[in-house]
Amino acid sequence: MTDTTSTITDTSEAGLDRVMAAAEAAAPVFGGLRPAERAAMLRRAAAELDAAADELVPIAMAESHLPEARCRGELARTTFQLRLFAETVEEGSYLEAAIDTADPDWGMGPRPDVRRMLVPLGPVVVFGASNFPFAFSTAGGDTASALAAGCPVVVKAHPGHPRLARRTGEVVAKALGDAGAPEGVFAVVFGQETGRRAVLHPRTAAVGFTGSIPGGRALHDLAASRPRPIPFYGELGSLNPVFVTRAALAARGDAVLSGYADSFTLGSGQFCTKPGVLLVPEGTGLEALAADVAGRAASRLLNERVTEGFETGLAELTGHRVTEVLVRGAAAEGDWTPTLLRTDAASLLEHRDVLLEECFGPTSLVVTYTDEEQLVEVAGALEGQLTATVQAEDGDAVAARLLAVLTEKAGRVLWNGWPTGVSVTHAMTHGGPYPATTSVLHTSVGTTAIRRFLRPVTYQSVPQPLLPEALRDDNPLGLPRRVNGAPEAG
Amino acid sequence: MTDTTSTITDTSEAGLDRVMAAAEAAAPVFGGLRPAERAAMLRRAAAELDAAADELVPIAMAESHLPEARCRGELARTTFQLRLFAETVEEGSYLEAAIDTADPDWGMGPRPDVRRMLVPLGPVVVFGASNFPFAFSTAGGDTASALAAGCPVVVKAHPGHPRLARRTGEVVAKALGDAGAPEGVFAVVFGQETGRRAVLHPRTAAVGFTGSIPGGRALHDLAASRPRPIPFYGELGSLNPVFVTRAALAARGDAVLSGYADSFTLGSGQFCTKPGVLLVPEGTGLEALAADVAGRAASRLLNERVTEGFETGLAELTGHRVTEVLVRGAAAEGDWTPTLLRTDAASLLEHRDVLLEECFGPTSLVVTYTDEEQLVEVAGALEGQLTATVQAEDGDAVAARLLAVLTEKAGRVLWNGWPTGVSVTHAMTHGGPYPATTSVLHTSVGTTAIRRFLRPVTYQSVPQPLLPEALRDDNPLGLPRRVNGAPEAG
Repeated sequence: MTDTTSTITDTSEAGLDRVMAAAEAAAPVFGGLRPAERAAMLRRAAAELDAAADELVPIAMAESHLPEARCRGELARTTFQLRLFAETVEEGSYLEAAIDTADPDWGMGPRPDVRRMLVPLGPVVVFGASNFPFAFSTAGGDTASALAAGCPVVVKAHPGHPRLARRTGEVVAKALGDAGAPEGVFAVVFGQETGRRAVLHPRTAAVGFTGSIPGGRALHDLAASRPRPIPFYGELGSLNPVFVTRAALAARGDAVLSGYADSFTLGSGQFCTKPGVLLVPEGTGLEALAADVAGRAASRLLNERVTEGFETGLAELTGHRVTEVLVRGAAAEGDWTPTLLRTDAASLLEHRDVLLEECFGPTSLVVTYTDEEQLVEVAGALEGQLTATVQAEDGDAVAARLLAVLTEKAGRVLWNGWPTGVSVTHAMTHGGPYPATTSVLHTSVGTTAIRRFLRPVTYQSVPQPLLPEALRDDNPLGLPRRVNGAPEAG
Repeated sequence: MTDTTSTITDTSEAGLDRVMAAAEAAAPVFGGLRPAERAAMLRRAAAELDAAADELVPIAMAESHLPEARCRGELARTTFQLRLFAETVEEGSYLEAAIDTADPDWGMGPRPDVRRMLVPLGPVVVFGASNFPFAFSTAGGDTASALAAGCPVVVKAHPGHPRLARRTGEVVAKALGDAGAPEGVFAVVFGQETGRRAVLHPRTAAVGFTGSIPGGRALHDLAASRPRPIPFYGELGSLNPVFVTRAALAARGDAVLSGYADSFTLGSGQFCTKPGVLLVPEGTGLEALAADVAGRAASRLLNERVTEGFETGLAELTGHRVTEVLVRGAAAEGDWTPTLLRTDAASLLEHRDVLLEECFGPTSLVVTYTDEEQLVEVAGALEGQLTATVQAEDGDAVAARLLAVLTEKAGRVLWNGWPTGVSVTHAMTHGGPYPATTSVLHTSVGTTAIRRFLRPVTYQSVPQPLLPEALRDDNPLGLPRRVNGAPEAG
């Protein structure tokens, strides 16, 4: 067993000041590195994290109650992500380098030579999530994308896994330093008040956050209230509804229902992409689903705070007059078995303020509809979502309209799949309208997550030797660029 | 003379509700058009505005006190901008279409087929500026980029040119409608309280604003306070400092000083890119500059509110104990001649809270330095700027460091030019850290301004016929796309 008795004290106000000053001092040096140099640092961090797996995984298991295989897989995802961002940095199109050469005949009057690229914002404060202690925490997606962008990172450690945060931070900081990164480029700080101070700190340039709606909203408001407001990228909550057509149910009902049970119970229902609602036709036989769910093993939730939030939300759902409890989950010695509920579409719409709210943990709500038109109606009533899923068959008349409405509501729209499990790829979006996120223009997963930590700068008539290398005529970095509105000839 | 007696009443709350409902209803139709269809609408609006020049220009002159040549030039810029966005829409790379095909061997585990593109946000509310009644107002850059993105636009008319706003709006709305755009895609509303309501309106998806720091900040805070926060793109204030090295002054002092006088008096000093501060070596002869400025003609400011703000700011500057008045501008029958002030770099830094604030109107401050190191020091003390300019010679030792610091402070960095006059191009940035803007990631001028009104959506495993055309295998729209992280082979 790992040691759980040692306590970690909150970072002092002076300590945070020192960390932020060091991050700011590191910013121009780190941001000014060549792509290959920064990529090498990201790869070194990945390698050292992989090498520390046997030390880190047990700490993660002890602090998060997640099983070993899950922790090892998540760490692999984390280091894969760092390496993918290293590739992104080297490839260089993320800089959006563009050159408009001087043009005396430009339609609105003579145009000077203007050259644009993206530059790093400066120190980024990252609030990790409890449910993914590796991939969405200390060295997770926000950290990887901010470092890739060239921004120093200060992580506010999640109180659910402080020892893992500290140790992960040590490994990453040492790896970056060993690879030549400047002092101050990465640090971990502790304490809730420290987190508030970090959002308000004058040297902070942006914030990445993964967590609850109330917590994220409070920090969002704080960031907006600063004398100098800064971008706040909060990934908050999502219901992740799944819409099953009659035809899909008829063609593969058993597979749909067991896939649903797998998805909503994955990680004890503690995924931000957990399907919280499944819409199926009235008359769908739910006995096998209920038996399946009732037979699932109990598991410990992440921590006391998650458990309390789950118990409160669950009581509200199970006690609601329009819900029927199909499977009543139970807690034994802190382990929970999953709960399955049912209502109908009309009741869902009538009580949307309660029933369309996320309940983080092992529970989900089956909603029966009488008319497929109700699927479109429920879709239209949704708030912003990370994901929305359609289970349908070719030729389903409702599918196209459903996809159109869900495109307006969600960052990711799935067909005949399950929302849990977000692949880290170039074309991924893990985002969406509020309250899925506080910043609808962006994703927190996938290579385009880097865009959150960059801003455009244009150089007008600056001589070649004084231009950043990315914008010089001879393109010494070999970047993909646009010249006068079109891709530059190789 | 044009009729200035007719009054325009504020839009009622119910009237705004109707406009916003119509905009929301138009959003999916307008956003779902093919690129060529939306481009044709933008071109039709440009053509009809050009055709209405002889009607619109006199209204603009009467309401803004700007001369005819300036108004005609600005209208030409406005319609050029609409046509450039039409090209941008047709070219299609702004959609950032990306396809990652399914990959069972993907490094973090099997990857499904995921396809990403940008989609319009929904209805955008635009607050135009008074100082550019065409190019930054009703049919200006915010409107053009939002329409190009596929978003309906509701313009809150600037009170400085209500009749021009109304008539411009009529021309644009009719042109869009004649070209086949859905009802509700463009409207103009009136009244300050209407503007506040529009920012808070549940159907509003984003706001574009050009104006003062206090006004913009108040609306920014309102947008952030909504139950569903929305992006607020405010372009607020800027000092636009110009740093002149000893060598530049020695080599071409006369040209630098007369260029400065031209730039800061352009449009009666009512450009957001007006150089408010010019740093020159101590001992620089300022007599010719003072004579030049003193000889400049008087001109009427935009409106009563601008005049009042200018008088207050000017009194603060001229009455400050560390400033010397080189040329005292005077008002005669409402027309102002320019004011020129002087101080030294140490005093500027000591009283930066007053002296580094924008004073909108015909005045500027010459700052003398004893040591070129003070240029870097002043640059480091700046808040966010739209522009920063270096006047220097090849081989100037301070230039590289100055450019590096200014890159952190400004959206556009100029070399041996003047900041007034912002070309509309692909690589332009008209933006910068707060308070230059409230949204440091973006520009309000240039084709990338479209990015402000788009959000990413990813489709996972969606069958070909149900995918948006932009993401289908056969690429029916002929878009530039990225496939598996690299540009798609043509």
